[in-house]
Amino acid sequence: MSNSHHGSSKGNRHQEPLYETDIPTPSHAERAHTLAAAVGTASLCTLTQAIPDADFEADGYPYGSFVTYGLEGGNPVFLISTLAEHTRNLLGDSRASLIIAEAGEGDPLARARVTLVGRAEQLTAENNDTAKEIFLTAHPGAAYYADFNDFSFWRLNVEAVRYIGGYGRMSWVPIDEWRTSRPCPIAASSDRIIAHMNADHADTMVLYCDAFTKATETAVASMTAVDRYGFEMSVETEQGPRPIRLPFTKEVGTAKEVRIELVDLAKRARQQLGAQS
Amino acid sequence: MSNSHHGSSKGNRHQEPLYETDIPTPSHAERAHTLAAAVGTASLCTLTQAIPDADFEADGYPYGSFVTYGLEGGNPVFLISTLAEHTRNLLGDSRASLIIAEAGEGDPLARARVTLVGRAEQLTAENNDTAKEIFLTAHPGAAYYADFNDFSFWRLNVEAVRYIGGYGRMSWVPIDEWRTSRPCPIAASSDRIIAHMNADHADTMVLYCDAFTKATETAVASMTAVDRYGFEMSVETEQGPRPIRLPFTKEVGTAKEVRIELVDLAKRARQQLGAQS
Repeated sequence: MSNSHHGSSKGNRHQEPLYETDIPTPSHAERAHTLAAAVGTASLCTLTQAIPDADFEADGYPYGSFVTYGLEGGNPVFLISTLAEHTRNLLGDSRASLIIAEAGEGDPLARARVTLVGRAEQLTAENNDTAKEIFLTAHPGAAYYADFNDFSFWRLNVEAVRYIGGYGRMSWVPIDEWRTSRPCPIAASSDRIIAHMNADHADTMVLYCDAFTKATETAVASMTAVDRYGFEMSVETEQGPRPIRLPFTKEVGTAKEVRIELVDLAKRARQQLGAQS
Repeated sequence: MSNSHHGSSKGNRHQEPLYETDIPTPSHAERAHTLAAAVGTASLCTLTQAIPDADFEADGYPYGSFVTYGLEGGNPVFLISTLAEHTRNLLGDSRASLIIAEAGEGDPLARARVTLVGRAEQLTAENNDTAKEIFLTAHPGAAYYADFNDFSFWRLNVEAVRYIGGYGRMSWVPIDEWRTSRPCPIAASSDRIIAHMNADHADTMVLYCDAFTKATETAVASMTAVDRYGFEMSVETEQGPRPIRLPFTKEVGTAKEVRIELVDLAKRARQQLGAQS
């Protein structure tokens, strides 16, 4: 299990934290991998070759194009046409990067993004089985042109990873951590879990705060995030909303395991508060 | 006025068109400019310099990063930190591109995108007034760090423009056309106009079809797009939905002028159908 070097003390830098800060949180490798696995569209950066139809006499410019991708381990795979600029660019120079950005509302620079840098490799009918399956699972609509002669699968063999989680939360992810990290197994369920907790268990979250944090005067707490290692709440205090993170007892793999953890945590909170009073 | 070389015959290539096809439509330069003016976030592609903290011994890779931008004529302007990778990259090599993608639902490759390629220029306190005003109008939340010492305004001086409107609709936009084109003046109103026409004037659109197109058996027509030169409808035919484009009598500049055109067109349709019967 890989713990973050960064904690989750967003916006809380100059205040006394309301909870233990050395609890497990997803690493940047894990956050980046979760983001890359969730999105599916990105900008591909390649190096221009001479461009015959453009009013533009140059090569070696960094060129951005829009692509769909799947993820083979930590390496993105694409299905692209030899007629497209990016493909012509890659055939001339395999250096490339893929920038994947989190969708959402509000301040765009507060959202997460990851850049995967490496060399792109054209796959052949002999070695594209895995890439093809992964790509077409992610983008089933591409099946009808996947076998066209002018389309090929390509894989970006990643050599460097830059993760930016938002303002001030960024790092070059150690490449071994990137390669061994896994996307969060409950990412697809997290919105549902959060909505359920906020709709039906707001009182339980106040209980969590009373029992396990310094925010003992809390009357309102809402869940803001949940991942394989724990969950985060925003609690109302006299100083305004403050973030709190609590850990699970073990790494969870399913939404059901999250539920077991949250029920168990409520039980322990009641025991602890009963023992105190 | 610049007319398209491409018309609006989406998905209609092998069918007899239901309307005159030489009517004015936005050029690729105009479509690209409208898109770039509407979006505000993009991927910036730069060339990596040596990266001290990365497990990565290389330079000259194309590097994608996420940015917010404003548009000064046809040139994007940014506010970026000297601490950021892209800024360090641009200080080492000014070649860059910006890839701007249309947001939306459904097939991502059916959506429009534009790549602006050129050289980025760092602006100074002496010459950044225009860029600063444009950028902060687009991104008012950036005002609080716009004057920080480690932030600068930059402008991408565009040399080449690649527009992709969706499947099979793409071109290198002539750079003079890009520089002289203007975003569609009614882009911000078009959703509202379309919703209003479809909610309240479906019968008028059937009248348009009867009077001015070959789709005289049409019972259902809905507006799908409107721009400075005209509007597009989808009409139900025995062969399935078909696109129709009708021109305005002149280039419009406001939503009010669109309304005048549509009312006038309805009057002429009634006159023509009365004269025929």
